[in-house]
Amino acid sequence: MQLSFQDLEDLARGAAFLGTGGGGDPYCGRLIVEQAMREGGTVEIIDLDDVPDDALIIPTAMMGAPTVLIEKLPHGDEAIQSLRRLEEHLGRKAFATMPIECGGINSTMPLVVGARLGLPIVDADGMGRAFPELQMETFHVYGVPGTPMVLTNEYGDSVLVTTHDNYMMEWLARGITIRMGGAAYIAEYAMDGRTAKRTAVPRTLSLGLKIGRGIRQARQEHRDPFAAIIELLKTTPYKFGAIIFEGKVIDVFRRTTEGFAKGRAILEAISNEREQMELIFQNEHLVARVNGQLRAIVPDLICVLDSETAEPITTEAIKYGQRVKIMSVSVPEIMRTPEALAVFGPHAFGLNEAFQPIETLVGSKE
Amino acid sequence: MQLSFQDLEDLARGAAFLGTGGGGDPYCGRLIVEQAMREGGTVEIIDLDDVPDDALIIPTAMMGAPTVLIEKLPHGDEAIQSLRRLEEHLGRKAFATMPIECGGINSTMPLVVGARLGLPIVDADGMGRAFPELQMETFHVYGVPGTPMVLTNEYGDSVLVTTHDNYMMEWLARGITIRMGGAAYIAEYAMDGRTAKRTAVPRTLSLGLKIGRGIRQARQEHRDPFAAIIELLKTTPYKFGAIIFEGKVIDVFRRTTEGFAKGRAILEAISNEREQMELIFQNEHLVARVNGQLRAIVPDLICVLDSETAEPITTEAIKYGQRVKIMSVSVPEIMRTPEALAVFGPHAFGLNEAFQPIETLVGSKE
Repeated sequence: MQLSFQDLEDLARGAAFLGTGGGGDPYCGRLIVEQAMREGGTVEIIDLDDVPDDALIIPTAMMGAPTVLIEKLPHGDEAIQSLRRLEEHLGRKAFATMPIECGGINSTMPLVVGARLGLPIVDADGMGRAFPELQMETFHVYGVPGTPMVLTNEYGDSVLVTTHDNYMMEWLARGITIRMGGAAYIAEYAMDGRTAKRTAVPRTLSLGLKIGRGIRQARQEHRDPFAAIIELLKTTPYKFGAIIFEGKVIDVFRRTTEGFAKGRAILEAISNEREQMELIFQNEHLVARVNGQLRAIVPDLICVLDSETAEPITTEAIKYGQRVKIMSVSVPEIMRTPEALAVFGPHAFGLNEAFQPIETLVGSKE
Repeated sequence: MQLSFQDLEDLARGAAFLGTGGGGDPYCGRLIVEQAMREGGTVEIIDLDDVPDDALIIPTAMMGAPTVLIEKLPHGDEAIQSLRRLEEHLGRKAFATMPIECGGINSTMPLVVGARLGLPIVDADGMGRAFPELQMETFHVYGVPGTPMVLTNEYGDSVLVTTHDNYMMEWLARGITIRMGGAAYIAEYAMDGRTAKRTAVPRTLSLGLKIGRGIRQARQEHRDPFAAIIELLKTTPYKFGAIIFEGKVIDVFRRTTEGFAKGRAILEAISNEREQMELIFQNEHLVARVNGQLRAIVPDLICVLDSETAEPITTEAIKYGQRVKIMSVSVPEIMRTPEALAVFGPHAFGLNEAFQPIETLVGSKE
């Protein structure tokens, strides 16, 4: 599948939805790919099933705080350099690149790499959403070493990291990212097609495209875009979506610290001003509580959407006065296994609540 | 020249003298080399003149805060792994290793590498003393790129850094060292023999050996070890040494921060309690002032020595109540050029005073 300019706009929006607040600004992501397409690059998306078992896939991404990204735009070559250096180190050429997570920038950064280098982009990723840390990937959950990995900055400085486990990879790479100014561009979790088929969350690029397109078409046809998303999700591994709150942002606390955008947003319900939702985030939304009661929790998606247009709002863009609807979405089974929850469930973020599927949480409230 | 156990003890002491408070604990450094020698390794020191012009030298060292080192001892393989990884990356084997600075641990760490790998150690280094940062090397001053460099920790995690300049190398490597727990083992400034001859400070290992031996022999023969050092220095490029203060340590402020041991020591004169010397250090001593008057300043050596035995006291070991003599020593001309002072003169450390040679400072006082 080759992406058109319209597809790209839809994908950036839909990927930002799946990014659950993180994964970077979709507008920034789109601009860089458009540039690559105008310069003659084509964006060729291929299904995971079409990747030969022994072909080398090198995923590429932005790492760091999305708050930094919007002030320090990438030119797009950084991730390419990371991929090339990793190829050199491995002594093998990549057959394709792939996203490591869904998000406005991290679903599109591999498209820049693909368009510029003439590589296809695999329609899958390692998170099925966005997560703030590098070991929070299904690749890691199912045994793929993340290193050797490469980080590159806008000056072409680059660092090759090799660690005994993926937690140490995250720890060192985060420190390097901070010293690179809070954002770096990476190539990691190099793997063959067979391994990707076993460990990746499949078809998340095409899902992002469908969601973004669904929102746009519903708007154009004056249908309810929220209902359109919920209907669309039913036919995918992200089966269940529900609006869990509608309100106005009345407070945001956000700090770029330790290489992350960490904070909290408070929303007041439209229907009842004594009902307040608290959203806790670390790049991505982690938990939603209403007056202290759990309403949705990681790894299920917590999507903050403009209450009129259903445009996804990322955690670095959320601000006082916005009218929003909060949609929570169930994630695929591969992301809800005990092994997966041990790596990116609530306890991995220091939250006290145990994971509860959004289907149950919504059901118990009704 | 092959080192004996006695030589090793002398060298560790003399190197700690040249380390001007930094470069790591000489006892730790000695223990690790002794272990390597007991296991059959020989320590072969070669003169810079005997290195072929096109032979590859890979310097090795410990990087980080010496305060950390004394709690987290290296096993000696870390620097070996850094050297091996750099060889792999360069696609060439090292002919020899070399210290990057003088100091109790950093003059001996390359000896471990040499003894274990059967490589000679070049009798030279890149600082002619110890300095806290990686760009503060004569190699850098005279145009040698420090990267590609490798850092390794005690778990075998390793990082290959490639940067557009040596300041960025220091910045990234420092961040990595901090995340590795405050101490890491490095291979950097790989260069050929021709370049080393042009940029290194020559014969600092044999000088350290002579100083350490001189102190020991003076003690054994009940001569004044301070006079012995000053006499010995006259025949070397470190021509001038003088005792600039004698006193008691009455206060120490020390903090392990940003990957360094930073602080200040206050000494009260034996002869006059209203006369106080302030020593400012960042791993190494940077400036000595008496009642606010400049007495010695970087890059000249400021050596804190036990007032009875002349044993060098490193900045992490200095403590309340110690009776000490402070000796300042002129450094070789290669370290006092305008280019050198721009890199590791007083302003590079944020000190307000301009560099003044110790010969002048001592002369003007008398």
